[in-house]
Amino acid sequence: MNSDLILQLLKAIRDGTVTPEDGMKRLADFPYEDVGFAKIDHHRALRTGIPEVIYGPGKTDEQIVEIFDRMAGQGGNVLATRVSATAASAVGERFPEVKHDALSRTLVLARQETPRLPGTLAVLCAGTSDLPVAEEAAITAELLGNNVVRIYDVGVAGLHRLLAQRPALTQARALIVCAGMDGALPAVTAGLVQAPVIAVPTSVGYGASFGGIAALLAMLNSCAPNVATVNIDNGFGAACFASSMFSALERVLE
Amino acid sequence: MNSDLILQLLKAIRDGTVTPEDGMKRLADFPYEDVGFAKIDHHRALRTGIPEVIYGPGKTDEQIVEIFDRMAGQGGNVLATRVSATAASAVGERFPEVKHDALSRTLVLARQETPRLPGTLAVLCAGTSDLPVAEEAAITAELLGNNVVRIYDVGVAGLHRLLAQRPALTQARALIVCAGMDGALPAVTAGLVQAPVIAVPTSVGYGASFGGIAALLAMLNSCAPNVATVNIDNGFGAACFASSMFSALERVLE
Amino acid sequence: MNSDLILQLLKAIRDGTVTPEDGMKRLADFPYEDVGFAKIDHHRALRTGIPEVIYGPGKTDEQIVEIFDRMAGQGGNVLATRVSATAASAVGERFPEVKHDALSRTLVLARQETPRLPGTLAVLCAGTSDLPVAEEAAITAELLGNNVVRIYDVGVAGLHRLLAQRPALTQARALIVCAGMDGALPAVTAGLVQAPVIAVPTSVGYGASFGGIAALLAMLNSCAPNVATVNIDNGFGAACFASSMFSALERVLE
Amino acid sequence: MNSDLILQLLKAIRDGTVTPEDGMKRLADFPYEDVGFAKIDHHRALRTGIPEVIYGPGKTDEQIVEIFDRMAGQGGNVLATRVSATAASAVGERFPEVKHDALSRTLVLARQETPRLPGTLAVLCAGTSDLPVAEEAAITAELLGNNVVRIYDVGVAGLHRLLAQRPALTQARALIVCAGMDGALPAVTAGLVQAPVIAVPTSVGYGASFGGIAALLAMLNSCAPNVATVNIDNGFGAACFASSMFSALERVLE
Amino acid sequence: MNSDLILQLLKAIRDGTVTPEDGMKRLADFPYEDVGFAKIDHHRALRTGIPEVIYGPGKTDEQIVEIFDRMAGQGGNVLATRVSATAASAVGERFPEVKHDALSRTLVLARQETPRLPGTLAVLCAGTSDLPVAEEAAITAELLGNNVVRIYDVGVAGLHRLLAQRPALTQARALIVCAGMDGALPAVTAGLVQAPVIAVPTSVGYGASFGGIAALLAMLNSCAPNVATVNIDNGFGAACFASSMFSALERVLE
Amino acid sequence: MNSDLILQLLKAIRDGTVTPEDGMKRLADFPYEDVGFAKIDHHRALRTGIPEVIYGPGKTDEQIVEIFDRMAGQGGNVLATRVSATAASAVGERFPEVKHDALSRTLVLARQETPRLPGTLAVLCAGTSDLPVAEEAAITAELLGNNVVRIYDVGVAGLHRLLAQRPALTQARALIVCAGMDGALPAVTAGLVQAPVIAVPTSVGYGASFGGIAALLAMLNSCAPNVATVNIDNGFGAACFASSMFSALERVLE
Amino acid sequence: MNSDLILQLLKAIRDGTVTPEDGMKRLADFPYEDVGFAKIDHHRALRTGIPEVIYGPGKTDEQIVEIFDRMAGQGGNVLATRVSATAASAVGERFPEVKHDALSRTLVLARQETPRLPGTLAVLCAGTSDLPVAEEAAITAELLGNNVVRIYDVGVAGLHRLLAQRPALTQARALIVCAGMDGALPAVTAGLVQAPVIAVPTSVGYGASFGGIAALLAMLNSCAPNVATVNIDNGFGAACFASSMFSALERVLE
Amino acid sequence: MNSDLILQLLKAIRDGTVTPEDGMKRLADFPYEDVGFAKIDHHRALRTGIPEVIYGPGKTDEQIVEIFDRMAGQGGNVLATRVSATAASAVGERFPEVKHDALSRTLVLARQETPRLPGTLAVLCAGTSDLPVAEEAAITAELLGNNVVRIYDVGVAGLHRLLAQRPALTQARALIVCAGMDGALPAVTAGLVQAPVIAVPTSVGYGASFGGIAALLAMLNSCAPNVATVNIDNGFGAACFASSMFSALERVLE
Repeated sequence: MNSDLILQLLKAIRDGTVTPEDGMKRLADFPYEDVGFAKIDHHRALRTGIPEVIYGPGKTDEQIVEIFDRMAGQGGNVLATRVSATAASAVGERFPEVKHDALSRTLVLARQETPRLPGTLAVLCAGTSDLPVAEEAAITAELLGNNVVRIYDVGVAGLHRLLAQRPALTQARALIVCAGMDGALPAVTAGLVQAPVIAVPTSVGYGASFGGIAALLAMLNSCAPNVATVNIDNGFGAACFASSMFSALERVLE
Repeated sequence: MNSDLILQLLKAIRDGTVTPEDGMKRLADFPYEDVGFAKIDHHRALRTGIPEVIYGPGKTDEQIVEIFDRMAGQGGNVLATRVSATAASAVGERFPEVKHDALSRTLVLARQETPRLPGTLAVLCAGTSDLPVAEEAAITAELLGNNVVRIYDVGVAGLHRLLAQRPALTQARALIVCAGMDGALPAVTAGLVQAPVIAVPTSVGYGASFGGIAALLAMLNSCAPNVATVNIDNGFGAACFASSMFSALERVLE
Repeated sequence: MNSDLILQLLKAIRDGTVTPEDGMKRLADFPYEDVGFAKIDHHRALRTGIPEVIYGPGKTDEQIVEIFDRMAGQGGNVLATRVSATAASAVGERFPEVKHDALSRTLVLARQETPRLPGTLAVLCAGTSDLPVAEEAAITAELLGNNVVRIYDVGVAGLHRLLAQRPALTQARALIVCAGMDGALPAVTAGLVQAPVIAVPTSVGYGASFGGIAALLAMLNSCAPNVATVNIDNGFGAACFASSMFSALERVLE
Repeated sequence: MNSDLILQLLKAIRDGTVTPEDGMKRLADFPYEDVGFAKIDHHRALRTGIPEVIYGPGKTDEQIVEIFDRMAGQGGNVLATRVSATAASAVGERFPEVKHDALSRTLVLARQETPRLPGTLAVLCAGTSDLPVAEEAAITAELLGNNVVRIYDVGVAGLHRLLAQRPALTQARALIVCAGMDGALPAVTAGLVQAPVIAVPTSVGYGASFGGIAALLAMLNSCAPNVATVNIDNGFGAACFASSMFSALERVLE
Repeated sequence: MNSDLILQLLKAIRDGTVTPEDGMKRLADFPYEDVGFAKIDHHRALRTGIPEVIYGPGKTDEQIVEIFDRMAGQGGNVLATRVSATAASAVGERFPEVKHDALSRTLVLARQETPRLPGTLAVLCAGTSDLPVAEEAAITAELLGNNVVRIYDVGVAGLHRLLAQRPALTQARALIVCAGMDGALPAVTAGLVQAPVIAVPTSVGYGASFGGIAALLAMLNSCAPNVATVNIDNGFGAACFASSMFSALERVLE
Repeated sequence: MNSDLILQLLKAIRDGTVTPEDGMKRLADFPYEDVGFAKIDHHRALRTGIPEVIYGPGKTDEQIVEIFDRMAGQGGNVLATRVSATAASAVGERFPEVKHDALSRTLVLARQETPRLPGTLAVLCAGTSDLPVAEEAAITAELLGNNVVRIYDVGVAGLHRLLAQRPALTQARALIVCAGMDGALPAVTAGLVQAPVIAVPTSVGYGASFGGIAALLAMLNSCAPNVATVNIDNGFGAACFASSMFSALERVLE
Repeated sequence: MNSDLILQLLKAIRDGTVTPEDGMKRLADFPYEDVGFAKIDHHRALRTGIPEVIYGPGKTDEQIVEIFDRMAGQGGNVLATRVSATAASAVGERFPEVKHDALSRTLVLARQETPRLPGTLAVLCAGTSDLPVAEEAAITAELLGNNVVRIYDVGVAGLHRLLAQRPALTQARALIVCAGMDGALPAVTAGLVQAPVIAVPTSVGYGASFGGIAALLAMLNSCAPNVATVNIDNGFGAACFASSMFSALERVLE
Repeated sequence: MNSDLILQLLKAIRDGTVTPEDGMKRLADFPYEDVGFAKIDHHRALRTGIPEVIYGPGKTDEQIVEIFDRMAGQGGNVLATRVSATAASAVGERFPEVKHDALSRTLVLARQETPRLPGTLAVLCAGTSDLPVAEEAAITAELLGNNVVRIYDVGVAGLHRLLAQRPALTQARALIVCAGMDGALPAVTAGLVQAPVIAVPTSVGYGASFGGIAALLAMLNSCAPNVATVNIDNGFGAACFASSMFSALERVLE
């Protein structure tokens, strides 16, 4: 039963063919989304320019092309993450305007101009091995309207590299900090700024790094209180979370 | 060597008793904080009204009273978390104006008016057992200037309770969502709003909840991308993180 | 806004003071439970005789008495689990008709006759240390209308004790099997019957039993396919799950 | 020594060539299955139409063909799970009537009509990545006689999709709910229905999902009491468990 | 139905009042232990002098006294492990001949002479903190008939202490080796002897010893192939396992 | 300095060119193995017929051939475990008399007759997937002189299969019991016999079997006290441990 | 057989009553420590001034007094760690010259002057809660002859505090760095110095700090290569390890 | 702003064009490394001969060649670890003087003579499978100026092999001890020497070795106090840590 049906019911009540009491009983059984949920969702996507997203792993090249095709057909922006090189070429053949970033394994089809968010979002990473995750965050954030400042290779073992970036750090409205191994960079960074630090543990490391668990735990236990953490290697999620803060910003300013 | 000494050095350079080249060598050895760090820290506290914080566990009642006394002596706000009942009375005898909340085990000495942040911060919890953590978050957030909206006992096993709160949820600039056991509430909430959701796993549960690990993992794996997570039972940290978002807000608006 | 308000709205549509189109917009904003959720919940409780439940840990004796009092005031059955001896006496003073079982730490106030479910529910446990969990399951199940058959102390180290109970096992419609340590009993039992086996790992054991994890993993890995598992020590949940099967039964037969 | 031999022994007692006392001593040494076990097993398979099952992993294509051949020779239904594409073709060449489902990696040879079970069994999954597990459950359940209702892609991040299915959910006698990542779907679903929910964690996810552990723990800690859990990715086991409930049903009705 | 009933049935067959075919049907339904299991168990205890055992934790003093009383009433030996001091006194008042060992927390009532096993059983421990576990093993082993040689405080950090005991080590038929912390003693010992080494991890240690897990893992990974491991702190089990080897011995020699 | 040098030293003492006091100082510095260790090791191998062993994983085919060649050159028996098919052919070309067992991935060169040990050693496994581990145990045990009785596919989900083997079980001097998944077979078997049960967890299973951890924990927590456990998949170690028991046997009988 | 006996044997060889060949056979059976091990140990203690150490946990006050008494009787220094307040008073009554440090729970009886080691050993800790561990390290190190420089409360959340100590850090020959929670301090410190950093994870923290595991993992995964780690809370071990480096130093300089 | 700019500022102060007070404000904003950090780093490398290091995993062959090329261009020594065979050939084509060690997967370009450190560094390993890690340690240590003594295949299962090496062990200034499986070698070795033992767990083993966790835990729990541990398989880190001890040595002696 969809919203047309609800309207139909209300008209029947108006017309006297259904009593209010009977109408109420039937309303109680309506599936919830018929009360407007789906539309709200639709509106939100149109208003915010949030892209449709395809998560690559576990999908065949053919499936990725097909889903990409269907999403692109709706006219908005499309982002695919963790896409293999062969899937990227396959999509590229169909959509020559798609930008493929081999490092972060992202595919971006940017057709709709996303409204620019004020200020800057800093994306940091500790070492060059963290770059794929950092770039996934940066590219996603740019597609979502952020002015991204990349600050890479500033691991705590050479503290001067990080300290040299203090002006950029303190100017940012928010920071995404990616690190594997000992996961110490977010805590150290958070001690240098007032803005929120979104920590992204990466699966970089070996032995007792346990695929990012060591870094994840370090981040969850950060002494600095302006740190929150997302899943291991989840650069995409960090960018979405950072952007969601500004939906709050807009609402407050309206 | 403190900043007086730097000034002294610069004056000696001006006066010609030290060459610029020699002066530079000596500067390279200065402890860093002498270059102004400590002051910045001090200024920040004055400007933001962030209270001095005492973490109770592992401290004797006498130690808590003593530290509280010293901090209160600086004239600002003081917050003590996870304070035992006996420590609370001991502090209360010395500072009758201190507010003790037995549920969240917080002690608040609010002398300085914190500037009000715009909009609302929603604090949710799944069950009544999560209340101590939720209240630690709420009380901390209020002390930091937030208008807190409490939405308690809205666990996913009775979904209608949460859905009934949709207006308050969608109006909030940010949400702190506390849950133990299956930790499902932040993901479900995040699907209903655009604002950022700060997930706080609680150690509520038994058996395979492993003191909050089950909830923590569920939150880190949330399908909704507008979720970031803090440490188990860390209501204080969630409130600080939520407030740090608005330091960003202010900077952007200036 | 409650269901009275919905009715009021529908009457206004009937009376022509609100158009169906406007009515529909206002409906879309109604909190969901107003569309009947809460009532359904209420009806369900009345129809099935499922008791109100209080989970004891983390509550003071006073709180337990107070909640018990409030729930009992609604006229239905009340069950409290994991209640301390002192809380039990405190409740007992107020409600002399309450039955306290010290072993399972349950308190039962059975005022309303629960409809008897057909057939039997077997509750097994491996050793005497598993009795508290098994009894929590059995007492809960009885309150929910099951005819419970207790088969205790039938651990696999003395297989003949279990085999001697084959008639009772094969007659049961469902079996709740509690075991700690090696957690082998559910798998062995499931191989002897066709009915579903609900496995309850208990925290009984020491060393590498890790508070019930060893038993939990063994149960999740049961070779027999008619086994599903609930949380460690969760006798209450096992009984509820076993009873929920018969809500299915009733629906099919109607 | 088989049951013919027991009969022979009893006849010898009748004929007086063996005394009852000696007969008893020899009986005590009989292998147990000779006392009828094997037959019961055989009868059960014939009566219930439960298929013979082959678990694919760790077997060569040749082995799978050979086992399939032997099982098919007994005239009943055959199910093979987690079968590779090449093994599927190899079996298909020998048995053209076998149905291969590439998604769930199942092979079904359905020769014998399984008696239809009354009512419906709902199979849900959170996302499209959970489909292989959900389909393994659905196909197994159909072969076991269930009327399966598939409700896919209803993850909690978009709650309206699940709520829209409430009629189908509440009509089902039992629900199998598959989810990876945060594993929240079974708890949310269980709050909407009275029927039992069999939760199947899937290994879908990355980082701190730990191959399904996060989902598994969330399910074991479900606040809703009508949830029990099977092993990670164990769609087959969930279907068998759901069907075992109806062996109980039949017995009660007889 | 007990074995008297089986005899009765066989007599009825002999007498012709029951046909062999009917008799066979009824036999198939007999509970298994009626076919002699229970008696074998009883005989085994009588023949081997294995004591009845009470595991103390989780039992009240009263319960321990009561169980001890019942077991002692059967005339054999009784062993209680992990018994508190107060429970020990309570039992001691009733049975003055009981030997209480405060270190290992064992209570022994040795009324029946256990047949002496040939050769020696060496019990080793790494440090003085492992003594309670080692003594539980030694006292149990003595009660089971072993000639126990205690070799204590021979941890690998001072290798000469162990090497000095080589004659006693190489003479033993079997060795029980208890160690916490790094758990290295069993592997080192096993390299010096040909006899089997039963490794007992103890919960001695702190930090990353994780209550014996570090030692347990070290023992399971022993490079020397003549090592098998029992549960953490399970001195009792090690002694039983060591003694079970000699049931094999006797059988072979008969 | 080797034993020739010790002899030389003692002769010098006899000849009076070194005083006993000086001789003693020099002895204190001798490397230990020079005091006869290596010879003892050598003698042990000759006396017991224990084969030289090659552990395959992590070695190239060429390395395996080379080591095999060198070991075979010493005239004794050689056993290689976990050998790939290609390494097996390579060795087979050089040593046509080598027996390769593809299932257990063992290579055996049996030139020297190992003295037969009295009685039987039973090797059990739960399912066909456990066969590689069970066969590694059985083949190793045979090479070490045991009369092996194989009892396969007797998992606890079909208990009658195990019970049917009771005579063979109770006759064995020792039992090696291999099981993956729920790991219940050793505990159940141990309850049926008096002989020692050596439990071998296998990495068979999926999901929460965690590569054999579930089975390992179940075995360590076995309620039956005549169980000790070796590492996951360690069939070789179980066979060595079982054989080491009989070195004890021999010593006692001498 | 002790070293007197060896001398006796050598004299017998000199006297011709034992042949060198027979003497050699008997030597091969000597317990190893008789060849001088124990003496070496004794000498080492005398030469290095390493104290006798008592580990307090798990010992009664009486036992600690008794062991302390015995050790003190040998004339050297005595150190007791993790001693309760009551045990400390009990020892203090017997040995008034003993120094008790309540914070680190150490007892020191320093009678023998330990040779001073050159240079300084820096002991750092992140927060005041880490003080007990840091002081255990510092007090142990001082007793072992180190000039200890304490640098406390320099956690990475306020980086300037650490940077301000750069001169003291770079002058130290070695650094012991204690930290709980995120465990980031050792990695950050190691990036500022060339000397070795001995990392000590502390059990300070809550929730996902898991009693020091988070800090331990962070330290093991330190990007800076001049970091090695000891057990959680093991301040004593860190001090011993740091001192052992200088035994190397001395040997090289001799 | 670089150090030229600082000098420029100081000259402006000397020249009177900037007041000391203004100069101080501007200094406070300088990026830290401009105050000499980078140079110190540079100087350190020149003085100590520490090579530039490339960590191979996760880099393509092309990337490794390119980085190697760039680093070699600075004239110092270059070390690449964990390099694949194909990457090694690719680098070898460009730099024929590079030494490739296939076992340890290291590439060394040694152009600059590293100053020899006094004394010896012993590198031990338990079995041949630990050789890659041990050689990574040994080759790194040699490049850093150590005189390395290799002592391989001395696992504790054959203790005489280790004891035979006592002279070399006791002469070493420091020992790196690599072991997998039970990880017992470092503790045993540390009991034989006074020098510091750097323990390196290796991922050698199977089953419950959990990729080196068992060995790691054993090492962290070593009873001998002169043991500190690095990450699993981290031979490189162990060598760096061992060498860092001698930076302390030099400083003390100056």
